[in-house]
Amino acid sequence: MRCEVLAVGTELLLGQVVDTNSAWIGEQLAGAGIDCHFQAKVGDNQPRIVTAIRQALARSDAVICCGGLGPTQDDITREAIAEVLGVPLELDEEIAGRIEQMFSGRGRGMALNNLRQAEVPSGAIVIPQVRGTAPGLICRLGDRTIYAVPGVPGEMREMVGRAVIPDLVSLSGVRATIASRTLRTWGMAESTLAEVLAPRLTALDAAAGGGSGAVGGSGAVGGSGAVGGSGAVGGSGAVPTIAFLASGIEGIKVRITAKAPTTREAEAAIAAEEAEVRRLLGPVVFGVDDQTMEAAIGELLAGRGLSLGVAESLTGGLVGSRLTAVPGASDWFRGSIVAYATEAKRKLLGVGDSPAVSEETALEMAAGAAAALGADLGLSLTGVAGPTEQDGQPVGTVWVGMHSASGDDQARLLRLFGDRDQIRQIATISALDWLRRSLVDLSDS
Amino acid sequence: MRCEVLAVGTELLLGQVVDTNSAWIGEQLAGAGIDCHFQAKVGDNQPRIVTAIRQALARSDAVICCGGLGPTQDDITREAIAEVLGVPLELDEEIAGRIEQMFSGRGRGMALNNLRQAEVPSGAIVIPQVRGTAPGLICRLGDRTIYAVPGVPGEMREMVGRAVIPDLVSLSGVRATIASRTLRTWGMAESTLAEVLAPRLTALDAAAGGGSGAVGGSGAVGGSGAVGGSGAVGGSGAVPTIAFLASGIEGIKVRITAKAPTTREAEAAIAAEEAEVRRLLGPVVFGVDDQTMEAAIGELLAGRGLSLGVAESLTGGLVGSRLTAVPGASDWFRGSIVAYATEAKRKLLGVGDSPAVSEETALEMAAGAAAALGADLGLSLTGVAGPTEQDGQPVGTVWVGMHSASGDDQARLLRLFGDRDQIRQIATISALDWLRRSLVDLSDS
Repeated sequence: MRCEVLAVGTELLLGQVVDTNSAWIGEQLAGAGIDCHFQAKVGDNQPRIVTAIRQALARSDAVICCGGLGPTQDDITREAIAEVLGVPLELDEEIAGRIEQMFSGRGRGMALNNLRQAEVPSGAIVIPQVRGTAPGLICRLGDRTIYAVPGVPGEMREMVGRAVIPDLVSLSGVRATIASRTLRTWGMAESTLAEVLAPRLTALDAAAGGGSGAVGGSGAVGGSGAVGGSGAVGGSGAVPTIAFLASGIEGIKVRITAKAPTTREAEAAIAAEEAEVRRLLGPVVFGVDDQTMEAAIGELLAGRGLSLGVAESLTGGLVGSRLTAVPGASDWFRGSIVAYATEAKRKLLGVGDSPAVSEETALEMAAGAAAALGADLGLSLTGVAGPTEQDGQPVGTVWVGMHSASGDDQARLLRLFGDRDQIRQIATISALDWLRRSLVDLSDS
Repeated sequence: MRCEVLAVGTELLLGQVVDTNSAWIGEQLAGAGIDCHFQAKVGDNQPRIVTAIRQALARSDAVICCGGLGPTQDDITREAIAEVLGVPLELDEEIAGRIEQMFSGRGRGMALNNLRQAEVPSGAIVIPQVRGTAPGLICRLGDRTIYAVPGVPGEMREMVGRAVIPDLVSLSGVRATIASRTLRTWGMAESTLAEVLAPRLTALDAAAGGGSGAVGGSGAVGGSGAVGGSGAVGGSGAVPTIAFLASGIEGIKVRITAKAPTTREAEAAIAAEEAEVRRLLGPVVFGVDDQTMEAAIGELLAGRGLSLGVAESLTGGLVGSRLTAVPGASDWFRGSIVAYATEAKRKLLGVGDSPAVSEETALEMAAGAAAALGADLGLSLTGVAGPTEQDGQPVGTVWVGMHSASGDDQARLLRLFGDRDQIRQIATISALDWLRRSLVDLSDS
């Protein structure tokens, strides 16, 4: 089963908007075991949209058109699909009624062109909208299928997950449910992860009957593609596959996917494999699916009834801004003192005469943050983000300090590489991960 | 002149990496007056890369292939281009020598596969690398051209700017230099910007001889495309064009582009138009080209010899982290106190008993930040980021306070819309912009 993605919108070609939708859809297709060999972008121009759809259908079983379903004259994906199908557009009374209701419910008058969104190519299956006003479309053309979803990311994701992927999976003929879970990791290189998980990869590959996706082959554990092969599931037992997704500053994701006749069986296979993977990876795993590092920390702090205060220097507020991105952070986050000037470090944090980038200063900042902010725990960062060295310390030198009420204060040295922005970002996530691991240890003890 | 973009890499299709290169190249092509009607992504698969290049050349004059030039077996863009051209790959001794030198210069042994990067399709023009090890390529095929550039964004941008765009412009037959300047704005809606600049758009269109890109026509001022038309320049005078690019949280960009026989004439035309646009827009313009809001503030503060202290609540450190993204921020930034807990607001900032989200508290926080951090100016933010209201204040209510040594303290109320992240981001940029405008006024007085 092959499916392409066509992102529609002149703003994408002009670089005014970066197309993130195709990447997201590509990830979903890969997770569902559907091949995606080409993705394209085209402007709001009917002949070119028609050309692009025809090209996609000439080499793949399906194409997902993303964008161009809105109410304005620029939104012509519907017209282009109708042309490819060779059918007229027809007003769908049900959609029209829903759009009219939506506007009257908000006490607003409706511009007539909103009804354009109720026009569908004759014979199309409508994917009802649950957010926004534009419905999606499923259109059959012989054994090929054209999908249309809105370009607004939230609406697109909801619709692809609810209707498009299930339809593709059903068309693929595999009578199975696909479920997946992503374990998020920080602190282990991709090659090490692959090495540590090698026993599982070998075991899964053997269980799946070997063949495609052999472990150890070139590229098999190189970050692309699932190990185990998509056709790995036999008639009965669900053999999961494991794939790695390097996600830069967000760490490396380990995705476990399972196909099974029922959701319950798929979920059970995933749960069993997750336990194995967690046993091998240990505290490297910080979260599941969309859970962020800061959300994981928030849960741990709230669970222990602990509060946190932060002292930042080179990160300038990045640590605090990530922590406060978590709704309800005020339950456990007291604040952060961004002490850029030396005088501010002394006055607000009680730091002494040690060099600004040193173990002593990091320890004093952590204790000072906890004291000044009235928090149980203190976390501190001081270092050299660049572009030039500072007090003889090279760019990338970062000390992280941690203070706890028990008096078991610690500091650790990081040597980071990259430009100013990268060093600040990696220092932030590294400090947060150290805090998280300390909290896990605290919970275990 | 039409040019397509082909991004090469399986990781792009799998959604592990979002392709931002194509968007950037699209922006450069638009700025140079070159049409880009299609962009595509393809995996590391030679037959499919060949198909995609042939498809692009069948409908456009050129294609820029981005990625797949590295040293590993996965990097096969060179091979695919050679196949399209019908020529063999040949080792370029000069490139090979340079790669060997680079490794020996770093005292590292070189894996033999690095020499793959020295293989070029017979007859290709080499774009020498100035960063990284992979050179770029310019390959003619009849009246068509295939460009190849690395996928690493920094290397790609340098090479496209230095070699690809100039080659395309020269092929386009317009014996002219193209120059452009982007004025960055904050605080005016796109429709208002278009209205305010309407006299200029009309004047430029008239000077260019009307015709294409008529102002007032549908979409002409709607954010896409240049007003004035790319073929507007006659033999002698350079008539600039103006385009709007909505860039979300980064504001709206107003790009002035001019074609002229010489760079000096193009620059002169841009300078004259920039003066007109600035006269109409006034302090809405905060920067030029890649200058950020925080860099503009840094320049103003440094120029006045003033220092800044910040007090943040709902933004949790975002204001400080943006300001410290500017190299050399320590010259004018003293620090930020992120007071999330009420007790911290009292103790560190000397805030009294007023409600947390109120004009009084914002004023007290601003004065408290300046005092605690020993700064000339204090900037504060307090508000409700959501997801739930706070003390009867609806989500999106934000007070921004400013303190100066002159005692002319002020606060202003923002009512923002969006989710937690959007409210925090918009509050941050709005507060920074207010500070910037105050500094401009200060400089003018």
